[in-house]
Amino acid sequence: MNRAAARRQITGFSNLTIKYLRSLREKKHRKREGAFLAEGVRLLTDARECGHLPKMLVMVSGRDPHPLVNALEGDVLEQGGEVIETSSDILAKGTGKSNPQAIAGVFDEFDTSLSIIDRNSAPIWLVAQALRDPGNMGTMLRTGDAIGAGGLILIDDCADPFSVEAVRASMGAIFTQKVARASWGEFLAWLREGEGQLVAASLRDAVPYRGAPYQAPCFILVGNESQGLPEEYEAACDLRVTMPMKGRADSLNAAVAGAVLAYEVLDSLEG
Amino acid sequence: MNRAAARRQITGFSNLTIKYLRSLREKKHRKREGAFLAEGVRLLTDARECGHLPKMLVMVSGRDPHPLVNALEGDVLEQGGEVIETSSDILAKGTGKSNPQAIAGVFDEFDTSLSIIDRNSAPIWLVAQALRDPGNMGTMLRTGDAIGAGGLILIDDCADPFSVEAVRASMGAIFTQKVARASWGEFLAWLREGEGQLVAASLRDAVPYRGAPYQAPCFILVGNESQGLPEEYEAACDLRVTMPMKGRADSLNAAVAGAVLAYEVLDSLEG
Repeated sequence: MNRAAARRQITGFSNLTIKYLRSLREKKHRKREGAFLAEGVRLLTDARECGHLPKMLVMVSGRDPHPLVNALEGDVLEQGGEVIETSSDILAKGTGKSNPQAIAGVFDEFDTSLSIIDRNSAPIWLVAQALRDPGNMGTMLRTGDAIGAGGLILIDDCADPFSVEAVRASMGAIFTQKVARASWGEFLAWLREGEGQLVAASLRDAVPYRGAPYQAPCFILVGNESQGLPEEYEAACDLRVTMPMKGRADSLNAAVAGAVLAYEVLDSLEG
Repeated sequence: MNRAAARRQITGFSNLTIKYLRSLREKKHRKREGAFLAEGVRLLTDARECGHLPKMLVMVSGRDPHPLVNALEGDVLEQGGEVIETSSDILAKGTGKSNPQAIAGVFDEFDTSLSIIDRNSAPIWLVAQALRDPGNMGTMLRTGDAIGAGGLILIDDCADPFSVEAVRASMGAIFTQKVARASWGEFLAWLREGEGQLVAASLRDAVPYRGAPYQAPCFILVGNESQGLPEEYEAACDLRVTMPMKGRADSLNAAVAGAVLAYEVLDSLEG
């Protein structure tokens, strides 16, 4: 592809590309377009290092040269992607923020069917049920990356892992972790086709989370922020564990509970 | 105090009380008024059970009777507080949300000087440095409650623990955990006046977090979301520990890192 042809300047607020960028902040448009946004040099560099290049790169024009941005730009053009320069005012309109990052990329959404999950490729997988908060979603992806999990499986009606907030909170882990979406029935049927221990934090019929008999591949199931897991889901688990609760509350933030449990499982499987 | 005198109906949008409620969503006004908002029956009931009653209770009029709300109302009036009824439209304006909780309370801010901390009253204390996200702040309070920590000490320029978002994310722990605010210099001087082990997750000169020699009272220090801890702060710690990082990233979400470490310290001190 000709480099010059794929580089454009945008000078008008009403430009279609700017409207497109703005539309990707909404779930229905992301779904329709099969695309999502990631903002900032750090996130885009993480993506590139993981082999993910944006199909469109949008930058503020007249910025200082930056070696990481130059590398990104070169790769995007080489792959036949578009590089667009515009003013910071116009980019602010496109991103809907008064202080936008100086660079944003549009990526094709990843395949999120269960068939992409190779359960034996990692010792731990995180599973979230009806997780509603995009920040928690991104935090779980980030934790998954840190513990060497294979990915995050989303059950029932979860927040969109491709929202700008979730992508940002993942700190790049959206590009390292597999993400799959399934109903509870689909997930359970898939899980039982092969090896895999399903573990949840629970108050029912549970053993202490420390020293519990975890086995790889271990699937750590975390429930909805306000409702927790449905009883039926807990009952289907191979192992139910409790964590100490010394205060008034009987639960932790969902992403925190998942992380504390995941680090225990990691130690158990490696120890 | 006469019960009838302390009960009011508000029917106008421009009412001073409604403006007051709305103002408490902003930090500068909370600071000036020395007051903060908590919303929802659950949060207000948690507060009551911990001995904290709002000085003003604002409710949607014509709601269904609710035993917890009745108990709350009785206690507030008995303590000389105000009970205000209004329409859900007006309450929506007061809370600035289109779907407000049907009940909100105004509390006096707590004393947040270091002098309120009795270090020997709990084995673990959480310490956050320049923590900026109110959700992380609330999550740390909630984790503190769960592990039986004494409270959360806020160093340098942190988010406001009395913001509506932090109070909500704390799930009531704002009423069980002590909260103190101090500069780094003040905190360190105070810490060194008595017993206390200062611990941080670090990549420098650190030992594995599992099985490290933790001692009560243990102060777990967590750094800013994007910068981490200043090197000088890490150097001042009695113990630096590392947590496994198997992925691309070299850090966890601040509230997650604090929680994983806190559960390890809890197990170590109790084990």
